[in-house]
Amino acid sequence: MTADPLVPPGTTAAYDVTREELQLAARNHGMPLETMRFDITPVGLHYLLIHYDIPKVDPAQWTLEITGAVQRLATFTLDDLRGRDAVTTPVTLECAGNGRARLSPRTLSQPWLLEAIGTGEWTGTPLWPLLEEAGLAADVVDVVFTGLDRGVEGGAEQRYERSLTPDQIRNGEVLLVYGLNGAPLPPQHGFPLRLLVPGWYGMASVKWLSHITASTERFAGYQQARAYRYRADPDDTGEPVTRIQVRSLMVPPGIPDFFTRQRYVRPGPVLIEGRAWSGAGAIDRVEVSVDDGEHWTEAELDEPIGRHAWQGWRMPWDATPGPHVLVCRATDTAGNSQPLEHRWNLGGYAVNTVHRVGVEVTEHPPDTAAG
Amino acid sequence: MTADPLVPPGTTAAYDVTREELQLAARNHGMPLETMRFDITPVGLHYLLIHYDIPKVDPAQWTLEITGAVQRLATFTLDDLRGRDAVTTPVTLECAGNGRARLSPRTLSQPWLLEAIGTGEWTGTPLWPLLEEAGLAADVVDVVFTGLDRGVEGGAEQRYERSLTPDQIRNGEVLLVYGLNGAPLPPQHGFPLRLLVPGWYGMASVKWLSHITASTERFAGYQQARAYRYRADPDDTGEPVTRIQVRSLMVPPGIPDFFTRQRYVRPGPVLIEGRAWSGAGAIDRVEVSVDDGEHWTEAELDEPIGRHAWQGWRMPWDATPGPHVLVCRATDTAGNSQPLEHRWNLGGYAVNTVHRVGVEVTEHPPDTAAG
Repeated sequence: MTADPLVPPGTTAAYDVTREELQLAARNHGMPLETMRFDITPVGLHYLLIHYDIPKVDPAQWTLEITGAVQRLATFTLDDLRGRDAVTTPVTLECAGNGRARLSPRTLSQPWLLEAIGTGEWTGTPLWPLLEEAGLAADVVDVVFTGLDRGVEGGAEQRYERSLTPDQIRNGEVLLVYGLNGAPLPPQHGFPLRLLVPGWYGMASVKWLSHITASTERFAGYQQARAYRYRADPDDTGEPVTRIQVRSLMVPPGIPDFFTRQRYVRPGPVLIEGRAWSGAGAIDRVEVSVDDGEHWTEAELDEPIGRHAWQGWRMPWDATPGPHVLVCRATDTAGNSQPLEHRWNLGGYAVNTVHRVGVEVTEHPPDTAAG
Repeated sequence: MTADPLVPPGTTAAYDVTREELQLAARNHGMPLETMRFDITPVGLHYLLIHYDIPKVDPAQWTLEITGAVQRLATFTLDDLRGRDAVTTPVTLECAGNGRARLSPRTLSQPWLLEAIGTGEWTGTPLWPLLEEAGLAADVVDVVFTGLDRGVEGGAEQRYERSLTPDQIRNGEVLLVYGLNGAPLPPQHGFPLRLLVPGWYGMASVKWLSHITASTERFAGYQQARAYRYRADPDDTGEPVTRIQVRSLMVPPGIPDFFTRQRYVRPGPVLIEGRAWSGAGAIDRVEVSVDDGEHWTEAELDEPIGRHAWQGWRMPWDATPGPHVLVCRATDTAGNSQPLEHRWNLGGYAVNTVHRVGVEVTEHPPDTAAG
């Protein structure tokens, strides 16, 4: 910590990462970017952000309760939910803090670089029909989702809790999910049940879900009212983080140096490929530069694999010897493009700057090994 | 880097973690210690240490070749290997660098704290019969295992390669593994085939295995002759890292603070529990201290779940308000105990110091929230 007025409390301008950030990085892993080669992220490669501990839940003892301002209180077992209409759909999730560690100064929290992403094939049942059956009171303003994971944050003991308004659920896309990639949900993704809010950053998709509470008052829990807000400084109450902002990432071409992750590419034809997604709509285009943004070429887009899933893109490149900086930039159908420079906010949310990858094109990688 | 003579080249004495270490931590995740509650680590929670990129392998194109000083060259498809005698066994793996980031100075590499562990239920076929069928020449001194993962390390382009002597394979425990926890091996664990060397640190269990080469000369590859050696300083050629040294770890009791991971425990009965393992034999005993090592009590051991798998242990504790430091220490049947202080070596290997967990026992966790 420092008293530098340019460095707000709870942030650091240091390039180095603190022990506390390392503790989180050791638990909450990202998706190695070369595994964007898989349309659906294999279990174990999808990013994880877990605030407290991973609960070990006995599914025979577990129930989901719908309480609060409803006409009929309801309790569901896992079998009850599996017996309802089932939907299986690929959805890309991204942590709201993806890119945070690239900022300076940065908030001290999970130090994501770029890998807090993943695309699962999720199976579950739509939430809205359950709420309709329960009969939401007309004056319900927030539906609160409570997980079984418990810890201390912002000086208060709490379970992980987030809310949505009825209007945010009514479109039928929000799911109660019990399956991932054709198997039961793994413990780290919320077994036996999680919320899935397609198009939104991951904080909305509450894991280890046990209670849904219809509330006639605005939900003011920590994860809604204090965390996950775009704030300029500590006195700013900010705007809530909601949908995923447009982003593209590239499979780093060539081979890496183990420690520096510097990439080495052989001269000749190289296929630059990656994925792009946006919570605001479909992808309109992905542009690629092989000269650090001086010139841009439109990449070829793959067919979409789902309304809320990433979309593949590819661009052939004839790699010439020497250093190159490859860049990709996506634009969605709502007209949003990735910025060329970081857009700073206090929490380090939605840092969707273009993806730059430095490569050394050479016939003899070891001869040019960095550092 | 520094010219301080007490800080050898390639190490750092800084408490903070570098950007390069963070890049590795974002890829190579540990197993959150609370998931020691599972006898078998669910896929996605087992630690990962991947030197280069995760290959995407087409199993229809993949083969395993046995070449070199053998009487009969052999090529196996995945179906060939699945058709042979199958063994399913729980095996605990640990990264040789587990604990490295706790040292000062420490080598700049994957910055493991304590979580580089996991216990899979692995399915495969014993390696030794394949080598017998191939007919190892009498003068074979090393059997070399080559993975499909390729990168630059120590200034040289390479595939990941390690070797074992025929005597290290002859006992029949070394497996060619194609399954994990009842499913095909996931990409990140070596799909379609990996080596599994029970009792050894993870570097021996080559992933994405494609070639086995019988050699009449000592294998001097980077991962054998330069990395994974106990060295006192850069001029020391050192001794090879081989079997896993005895270790116990505890499930951190209570609930965590999100950022600091400080633990809060309610007063009253608490079950302190964890796992212990050793590559040198079975676990003889686990001792627990609730006063930072002043007094020790022997924990109750669970039944073993496998010859090379961790063993559960538990000790009831009546938690009294205030701060406490809990410690666990395992001793194996070969007489090895975990040291109380770090034993330094240049690579930061086998840092199996006792596990200390600070807890705050309080009725009101938020009131005492750390920093």
